[in-house]
Amino acid sequence: MSKMIIRKEDALDYHSKGTPGKIEVIPTKDHKSQRDLALAYSPGVAEPCLEIAANPEDVYKYTVKGNLVAVISNGTSVLGLGDIGPEASKPVMEGKGILFKIFAGIDVFDIELNSRNIDEFVTVVKAMEPTFGGINLEDIKAPDCFEIEKRLKEEMNIPVMHDDQHGTAIISGAGLLNALEVAGKKIEEVKVVVSGAGAAAISCVRIFVDLGVRQQNIIVCDSRGVIRTDRENLEGTKKEVATAADVHSLEDAMKGADVFLGLSKGGLVKAEMLKEMAKNPIVFALADPNPEIDYDVAMNAREDVIMATGRSDYPNQVNNVLGFPFIFRGALDVRATTINEEMKLAAVKAIADLAREPVPDIVGRAYNKTNLVFGKKYIIPKPLDPRLLTTVAPAVAKAAMDTGVAKHPIQDWDAYRSELVRRLGGDDNVMRVLQSKARQNPKRVVFTEAEDHRILKAAQIALDDGVIEKPVFIGNVATIEQIIKEHRLELEGATILDPKSDDEAVKAKVEEYAQAFFEKRNRRGFNLYEARNIMKTRNYFGTMMVEKGEADALLSGISRKYSDTIRPALQII
Amino acid sequence: MSKMIIRKEDALDYHSKGTPGKIEVIPTKDHKSQRDLALAYSPGVAEPCLEIAANPEDVYKYTVKGNLVAVISNGTSVLGLGDIGPEASKPVMEGKGILFKIFAGIDVFDIELNSRNIDEFVTVVKAMEPTFGGINLEDIKAPDCFEIEKRLKEEMNIPVMHDDQHGTAIISGAGLLNALEVAGKKIEEVKVVVSGAGAAAISCVRIFVDLGVRQQNIIVCDSRGVIRTDRENLEGTKKEVATAADVHSLEDAMKGADVFLGLSKGGLVKAEMLKEMAKNPIVFALADPNPEIDYDVAMNAREDVIMATGRSDYPNQVNNVLGFPFIFRGALDVRATTINEEMKLAAVKAIADLAREPVPDIVGRAYNKTNLVFGKKYIIPKPLDPRLLTTVAPAVAKAAMDTGVAKHPIQDWDAYRSELVRRLGGDDNVMRVLQSKARQNPKRVVFTEAEDHRILKAAQIALDDGVIEKPVFIGNVATIEQIIKEHRLELEGATILDPKSDDEAVKAKVEEYAQAFFEKRNRRGFNLYEARNIMKTRNYFGTMMVEKGEADALLSGISRKYSDTIRPALQII
Repeated sequence: MSKMIIRKEDALDYHSKGTPGKIEVIPTKDHKSQRDLALAYSPGVAEPCLEIAANPEDVYKYTVKGNLVAVISNGTSVLGLGDIGPEASKPVMEGKGILFKIFAGIDVFDIELNSRNIDEFVTVVKAMEPTFGGINLEDIKAPDCFEIEKRLKEEMNIPVMHDDQHGTAIISGAGLLNALEVAGKKIEEVKVVVSGAGAAAISCVRIFVDLGVRQQNIIVCDSRGVIRTDRENLEGTKKEVATAADVHSLEDAMKGADVFLGLSKGGLVKAEMLKEMAKNPIVFALADPNPEIDYDVAMNAREDVIMATGRSDYPNQVNNVLGFPFIFRGALDVRATTINEEMKLAAVKAIADLAREPVPDIVGRAYNKTNLVFGKKYIIPKPLDPRLLTTVAPAVAKAAMDTGVAKHPIQDWDAYRSELVRRLGGDDNVMRVLQSKARQNPKRVVFTEAEDHRILKAAQIALDDGVIEKPVFIGNVATIEQIIKEHRLELEGATILDPKSDDEAVKAKVEEYAQAFFEKRNRRGFNLYEARNIMKTRNYFGTMMVEKGEADALLSGISRKYSDTIRPALQII
Repeated sequence: MSKMIIRKEDALDYHSKGTPGKIEVIPTKDHKSQRDLALAYSPGVAEPCLEIAANPEDVYKYTVKGNLVAVISNGTSVLGLGDIGPEASKPVMEGKGILFKIFAGIDVFDIELNSRNIDEFVTVVKAMEPTFGGINLEDIKAPDCFEIEKRLKEEMNIPVMHDDQHGTAIISGAGLLNALEVAGKKIEEVKVVVSGAGAAAISCVRIFVDLGVRQQNIIVCDSRGVIRTDRENLEGTKKEVATAADVHSLEDAMKGADVFLGLSKGGLVKAEMLKEMAKNPIVFALADPNPEIDYDVAMNAREDVIMATGRSDYPNQVNNVLGFPFIFRGALDVRATTINEEMKLAAVKAIADLAREPVPDIVGRAYNKTNLVFGKKYIIPKPLDPRLLTTVAPAVAKAAMDTGVAKHPIQDWDAYRSELVRRLGGDDNVMRVLQSKARQNPKRVVFTEAEDHRILKAAQIALDDGVIEKPVFIGNVATIEQIIKEHRLELEGATILDPKSDDEAVKAKVEEYAQAFFEKRNRRGFNLYEARNIMKTRNYFGTMMVEKGEADALLSGISRKYSDTIRPALQII
């Protein structure tokens, strides 16, 4: 699969067009009559208020609390962008909310806080406890995030999770279990090198240890080199992962290592370092957007490497969306008072196990892959796998019950799974994306209206999407090239053909098509002269390309925007 | 109009049925393909983040901030229910959000805070400033609400309004201006008595003074009597409204008063006290649910009274929904940094002026009134008047601009009003309620399937709604009475008729119908004997009731729930 290209202009349009932002809060109950409003607000609303006042748990019965998660950030460590502040983090938080909704049907209020003080941050989030069923902390800088999460977990009675720490750790943990299985190695024996000492890296180390890796077998490096116990001024979390071993550089550490986990910077690991690792090395190079070692470089360096990255264009993507929607789903559904280690480990196990199961056909088609079979290239499930909801959420719910933190245990697991399947079948969810994706199959498409800039722009997006390959534009070559230039399009791999051109190759093609057309349709009254003229028109020329198998599909007569017309058209083809 | 009856069971059902609570957060942008998700979240989302980081005002361009209001409460003074805590206040806050959405297209996150400390409350709300375009404080007890609002207004750069204080004051202020016009009195001369000294009452006094009432002409009473300057331990806001006049009881104060404003307790004002007031007395008896003096009692006491209440079943309802949606709409649309006094007074003036304009036909029909003409019975616009949005919001926006607090002034007022009209035309809004209401016209409806409990329940709701009057149930009398008893229905005014009964009156009716049927349809081959038998069947009997003008409509063959079938059916009739 080719990497999806996202243009700056398209991204800004997406977030600003129509109404600014990406979410809306709508009523779920009838509100079409005066009576409805009297039920929704005064005087009818007094009844549920009184019920809750008498029995506080009824807040889950009469309000959205039980399905409402706060995505909370102060914008101090946003994506790969760093400390851009709360306002600038808002597009990310709204987006995170959409992922919660699409993947697990969870409603999210995104709350961006102007607060850099740990005590104040904790006070603010704690005060909001009555509103929410759970708290997803997001993009808060280390080491503040550790203390904030720790205190909120201690002081609140609803699930709290800092996804940047645990999300990556949970998916990486699942990947590690499966990679070890494929490599034929025992977890308690493997030597692990970690590059990076941020929140996610520390949390990965912790979960690796929980899973069975020995702390003394882990070496963590940061930008200053190996984190050693003899380094001066070692702060809390770094102290926890410091090694006493006689290793002083990443290069040293890599020698004989079984596992490399990178959460640091693209390109840090050289092919030579990879070659020094043990047999069947496991390389999780998760730096965003460029891995610590490029996938192809790694594959060329040695054949036995088992590799995962953070990217969707290579096998084994470590993507947090495999975890957080389902972990919160399970936690909310049993009204867990926390998300504890057992629940996280249950998620790790469920995700790992899922990758060992046969993959449903629709998932294979969505990813245009027929080889999704447990092994080197498939140790981690795909984000659009619909089974994630129905396996990970129940596993987390069960772990909450087993550890005594579930206020509302599930009695009937079959009914619960049915309910999850029903959620999956809703309108705005992962099945829709999945089905849409499953229909995509890159095509050679002929565009006959290519002198219209809207069509060329649409083709650009379809090309970027990977929906089409090798587009053919029919029309005046100079005109089309001019439009491409003016609109700064990047249509590499496209062919421009003018059937009226004097180019010898084109003339030969027109002649060939005219002959074929004449032979096939002469009974309908065309002579060869007429057939030649007809073949110089764009639609007939394009149609004949498809008939001759030189293109897969023809798009003509389209003059509206891509999303309205071409995309559905391409999906139908 | 009869008072709408809201049953406890219906209210609890409304809030709990289907998914608990009343709201949902949904994506507004395409999210059907992998590409859409890549635009909504990583990697595309980085682009708007970077734009906002470079230019903070762009948060209004790329996020929902500019249309997002927080409805924030700690549940310490909820409706007429008192201090029921934040969880129990959540149904109200969700409902308030729905009103914002329906009346002005504003999205709301309802935030219930577990915080009774003023400093902490202020800290928490301030921290959320990056998230929201405005803050609507709600149901916070006095006197805390005064300091909380004051400090937040001083320390935040987005509009903050405590609606319980100012909402009622703004609508009452508008009502006062118009009542004085009708009464032919000058504002600077009138004597005002206020019963109640809570947040709303204090705020009313302030706005009355802003409008021209002299402070020395106002006497405020609380549960301990007249608030006098010589009362011991007078706290801040009560000190502000204390009188030095030689008046020691509500009765005393009412003598010769021009205006009574009640925000206290039902039934406090007796007819005798009303009779002691000056000519053309203005009585705003706003206690909820029962006014300080009953509307009918007041009208019987003296004819010249100009009265308003908080209830929808009498003329001149003082309803906050006339204010807050449009005040925030105007403030948000110019990115006002505050809601200042001038903006509130602009709202007062716009609401007052609107009541003096001719009323559109659709509003009259919605309220089933043909006499909505400026005067004693119509000094305050109706909540469903669609002109509120297009007059109040621009007035508030303009006041913000005139006072220099608008960061994003409106350039083209015509375009702005068109945009507001467009909002009004959307799916989930006031026009829908209005049109639905305008179709309602109480009817004599015959139910032929009345032996089905679902139909009787549906009829109950339709009756409570005022959608129907005097229902007629056709079927076995004992059976139907049994069902009514079992389901504890209250169907006063209903008639039960069994055309098969031996009751002489019914037999005479059947005979009359049979004759009429025979005469009208004998050409279609019925003889009188057959006609008599046919008239004993429920559907024919009911149909003939309608044909004879003894009922307005017939409902038969309906077996599903009210909201799906009967309500639309009744609206079409």
